Amino acid sequence: MVAQEDVIELAKRRGFFFGANGAYGGVAGFYTYGPNGAAVKDNLESAWRDRFTVRQGNMEIEAPTIMPEAVFEASGHLDGFDDMLVECPECGESHRADHLTEDNTDIEEAESLPVPEVEELIREHDLRCPSCDAALSGEPVEEFNLMFETSIGPGTGQPGYLRPETAQGIFVEFPRLKEYARNRLPFGVTQIGPAYRNEISPRKGIIRVREFTQAELETFIDPEEDEPPLHEVEDVEVTLYPATEQEDEEGEAYTTTVGEAIEKGVIGSDWVGYYLGVAQGWYERVGVDMDRFRFRQHLPGELAHYAADCWDAESEVGAAGIAAGSSGDGEEPRDGGDWIEITGFAYRSDYDLSKHAEHSGESFTVFKQYDEPKTVERAAVDPDMATLGPEFGGDAGAVADALQTLAERDPDAFDANEVEVEVDGDEMTVDSDVANFSVETVTENGEHITPHVVEPSFGIDRIVYTVIEHAYRTDEVDDEERTYLALDPEMAATDAAVFPLVSNDDRLLDLADEVTGDLRAAGLSVEYDDSGSIGRRYRRQDEVGTPFCVTVDRDGVEGDDPDTVTVRERDSARQVRVPVREVADELDALLDPEDDRAFDALTAAYDEIETGVETA
Amino acid sequence: MVAQEDVIELAKRRGFFFGANGAYGGVAGFYTYGPNGAAVKDNLESAWRDRFTVRQGNMEIEAPTIMPEAVFEASGHLDGFDDMLVECPECGESHRADHLTEDNTDIEEAESLPVPEVEELIREHDLRCPSCDAALSGEPVEEFNLMFETSIGPGTGQPGYLRPETAQGIFVEFPRLKEYARNRLPFGVTQIGPAYRNEISPRKGIIRVREFTQAELETFIDPEEDEPPLHEVEDVEVTLYPATEQEDEEGEAYTTTVGEAIEKGVIGSDWVGYYLGVAQGWYERVGVDMDRFRFRQHLPGELAHYAADCWDAESEVGAAGIAAGSSGDGEEPRDGGDWIEITGFAYRSDYDLSKHAEHSGESFTVFKQYDEPKTVERAAVDPDMATLGPEFGGDAGAVADALQTLAERDPDAFDANEVEVEVDGDEMTVDSDVANFSVETVTENGEHITPHVVEPSFGIDRIVYTVIEHAYRTDEVDDEERTYLALDPEMAATDAAVFPLVSNDDRLLDLADEVTGDLRAAGLSVEYDDSGSIGRRYRRQDEVGTPFCVTVDRDGVEGDDPDTVTVRERDSARQVRVPVREVADELDALLDPEDDRAFDALTAAYDEIETGVETA
Repeated sequence: MVAQEDVIELAKRRGFFFGANGAYGGVAGFYTYGPNGAAVKDNLESAWRDRFTVRQGNMEIEAPTIMPEAVFEASGHLDGFDDMLVECPECGESHRADHLTEDNTDIEEAESLPVPEVEELIREHDLRCPSCDAALSGEPVEEFNLMFETSIGPGTGQPGYLRPETAQGIFVEFPRLKEYARNRLPFGVTQIGPAYRNEISPRKGIIRVREFTQAELETFIDPEEDEPPLHEVEDVEVTLYPATEQEDEEGEAYTTTVGEAIEKGVIGSDWVGYYLGVAQGWYERVGVDMDRFRFRQHLPGELAHYAADCWDAESEVGAAGIAAGSSGDGEEPRDGGDWIEITGFAYRSDYDLSKHAEHSGESFTVFKQYDEPKTVERAAVDPDMATLGPEFGGDAGAVADALQTLAERDPDAFDANEVEVEVDGDEMTVDSDVANFSVETVTENGEHITPHVVEPSFGIDRIVYTVIEHAYRTDEVDDEERTYLALDPEMAATDAAVFPLVSNDDRLLDLADEVTGDLRAAGLSVEYDDSGSIGRRYRRQDEVGTPFCVTVDRDGVEGDDPDTVTVRERDSARQVRVPVREVADELDALLDPEDDRAFDALTAAYDEIETGVETA
Repeated sequence: MVAQEDVIELAKRRGFFFGANGAYGGVAGFYTYGPNGAAVKDNLESAWRDRFTVRQGNMEIEAPTIMPEAVFEASGHLDGFDDMLVECPECGESHRADHLTEDNTDIEEAESLPVPEVEELIREHDLRCPSCDAALSGEPVEEFNLMFETSIGPGTGQPGYLRPETAQGIFVEFPRLKEYARNRLPFGVTQIGPAYRNEISPRKGIIRVREFTQAELETFIDPEEDEPPLHEVEDVEVTLYPATEQEDEEGEAYTTTVGEAIEKGVIGSDWVGYYLGVAQGWYERVGVDMDRFRFRQHLPGELAHYAADCWDAESEVGAAGIAAGSSGDGEEPRDGGDWIEITGFAYRSDYDLSKHAEHSGESFTVFKQYDEPKTVERAAVDPDMATLGPEFGGDAGAVADALQTLAERDPDAFDANEVEVEVDGDEMTVDSDVANFSVETVTENGEHITPHVVEPSFGIDRIVYTVIEHAYRTDEVDDEERTYLALDPEMAATDAAVFPLVSNDDRLLDLADEVTGDLRAAGLSVEYDDSGSIGRRYRRQDEVGTPFCVTVDRDGVEGDDPDTVTVRERDSARQVRVPVREVADELDALLDPEDDRAFDALTAAYDEIETGVETA
């Protein structure tokens, strides 16, 4: 397995991503995508939009990244979106207290422990500062809120926060979004955009950053009625790592089908199971290595209190902090890499909508029409206020309300001559006659229900990283070692590169222009490169992951092979002479995901070249 | 002209955009794009990427939105990105002091006046609070920085700011980006993404918001060598409103060509002129009404101190704050609307890169190779430190430096026996012999230059708004008034809508499914709508701006016209019966921007229906 450092080094060299603000020493946790990384990320987002918005028939919205405090009071982030922090008394460095504990004891999931226990563990195990080795024993552990705070408007303004998840921008607009969905469940709303977490120590390369891109789908369902179309995914094979296996010393991940896992109750929610099946196909499509992939169920201690069932999609990537091992020197890479969460699948119940309804006072429900109107009996009072007023004065209104509440709860109480109600802790006695109790028969056409939410939440940056690392290959071509990215063409930043062999021959440059034009007209993204040796240009495109290179040489304009060019396939480094007028069609077909054709079709049809030009 | 309020009302009703966080009373200056608005915005960004990144051969990057303070110390935003604020002593409301002054006096560009002058103007004209009418006379005017501030990391952290323009994310990474461009000028880097301005009173609907999307292109050029390909745009007609015309009472905007405007010196920079020409075609493409569009030159007082020439693209939109006038009641709309800036074109010189070089200490230059190496004479000293040391002690190094500086500035000085240099204000006398002065002949292959920057900066949200407003139409169809958006198909959220006339006939539903499938297979985005009357469904799609609706009725499955459907064109509301197997091809051709075919081709080939079904 390749070391993360090698991937990060290539990413920087070839314009995928790099630490931002380098000229000013950088700020941990912020990365900039260079031109090739931005293109891969854009391709990945398009593939996500195609699968989870368009094909699922969902609506995509775009909400602001800054939101007011009230939203996060309701969502619980203001109180609960904390990490445990311990500050070194010597060097002043801040550390995640739970991570320190996990790294140095056999405690797992220290995050779920109460603060005093973690403080006790630090004392007990005499944990020390990873930066300067000072003792942390006795230092206070504090809850640190991970939201970035700012102030909206002039003066003291009002507090605002950068959203810690795109989801809140969807939940908070539910009252309007349901109108766009014409008040019919189920419906789904998606959003792709930035989210922010003010991590305490974001050291793990690009894996744990402070600003990142999420692609989230919130599916609003009627939990009593709506079933996912399970038949679409029941036969999809998935690798599952259920909680039971994680808790068992001998337990391990295993392969099964979505249908079987749901039937056996391993996956607790049909909807979550459905999305695991849909997502599985999508990860394959974008190039995640499925041998380094699993769905891991949350352990009971990990589950948010409102979540019924939650699974993470995890990919295995090179362990961070291990120097390049593949080159033979330095530390050996670990056998296994790190498993990182790239997506969370959660059954969030009605938690989010209920909280926003409670805090905002607005309605976050959908009116659910009954198949047939229901006739129900409803107890009601119609108190004689002319009597209540003089008798109870300022309390009369409260007494009337209490009578109505009593009627709904215990209609039989009105059989007696007098009823007693409590107002502000005082017992009040009212004549039953004054209450005017009755039972009405009413027809109800439906009821207001708060939808439940099923959420797949994708971490786009981690998937970009995974896709690049899982495509990272080294081999030897013509006795020279090379590195290349075996990216799926749908993900690659560039479809093809065109190289004029020399830059001082106009006929050759004209032909290169013609080929470039033909390829672009066929809809391919093309990089034109006339700088450096051909070998160097191949190496550059190999590292960028460009599927095909087209070299225009003198043979093509005057030699034995007039009007032909060399087409080279990235992964095999095989080369073939293809007539100029066929190049665009051939490459277009090879790049078409719906066309099965492989490079063999070209080597069968045209002359293959035995030796690669890169050593020429 | 339509009132802005009508557009905003339609935008809310049809899922284009609406004030965010409405359940919590909203926060001024933050909008959410609903599904149709997000689609239009995405289409607009794609069209921008196509024109300004792909076709111009530029690189697109994606940088974080949070940046550290050092970046904005260098860029000048920390000191200078301010608006003038005056707070009402009665109601506490904050107002833009410059806007108040402009609105109530005949002063223009109050923004460029010093604070005490604005305070004086408020006193002089007895300006009052627009909210509560309290006197503002005597209240202090303060500079309010428009950046949103936050804190990065735990504890006191380090200050960070939400970027006020995407450009800084490009400038600050220039040292790396130039490597991706292989150190060759000119090259361009683009970015599309959020930017933030903490506006004092963001009241103008969606026009002046606190969080918005910019699409910026930074072109790095060698000002002495690089010329834009003016021939591509010299004949492009543009409406210009130069500074001279603005300053002239009788002056007005006029139409000319880019080539002529550059030749006559109206446009001061070839590069700025080039981009005006490129942008002109792009605005036309996305549907800006060119009769409500102009390029306005910045007045001398408006220009940033570093900018040589700057033009804004401006569109005319319905005046804000005027109630719907087209419906006949309420206030009459003003004759003219408001002109709003939708793009800025600036020649920023080397200001940005020089500032970042100065503040970061890093190199923000490109090595410019000479065509041929130059032989130059260079005066140098090689002081005898064994003599200087004892003579000048701790100042010896400074004396040596001063001698070198003198040699470069005035080599002849070393002809005398002694030379005088100044160190920390003291005159020092040195023997010429000790300085070891000589003139060396050196060969230089090139020099390090700081590129200049030409920047077109597009405000995507304002262009989305303009495109929607300029597409807003009302007319009568079958004696009923209707509203529709005549959006260019490339911008429309949906290409076509499919309506089964009734929902209780399986044959009809099957046919509707088949048509939907055919259209999607042809690459069209399709909305399927089976809810409400056909008239209502047409009105809905008209207001969304869907170019074509396809209605599947009983005639199509059993009547006189088997296997045909009704295709309706949005703008003309004309309808035609088209065979099912032809629908996808016909609509695909009509929607193809490279195909000139109009709806007439369909009415010529098939039976036109005289009466619209919407009144049926």
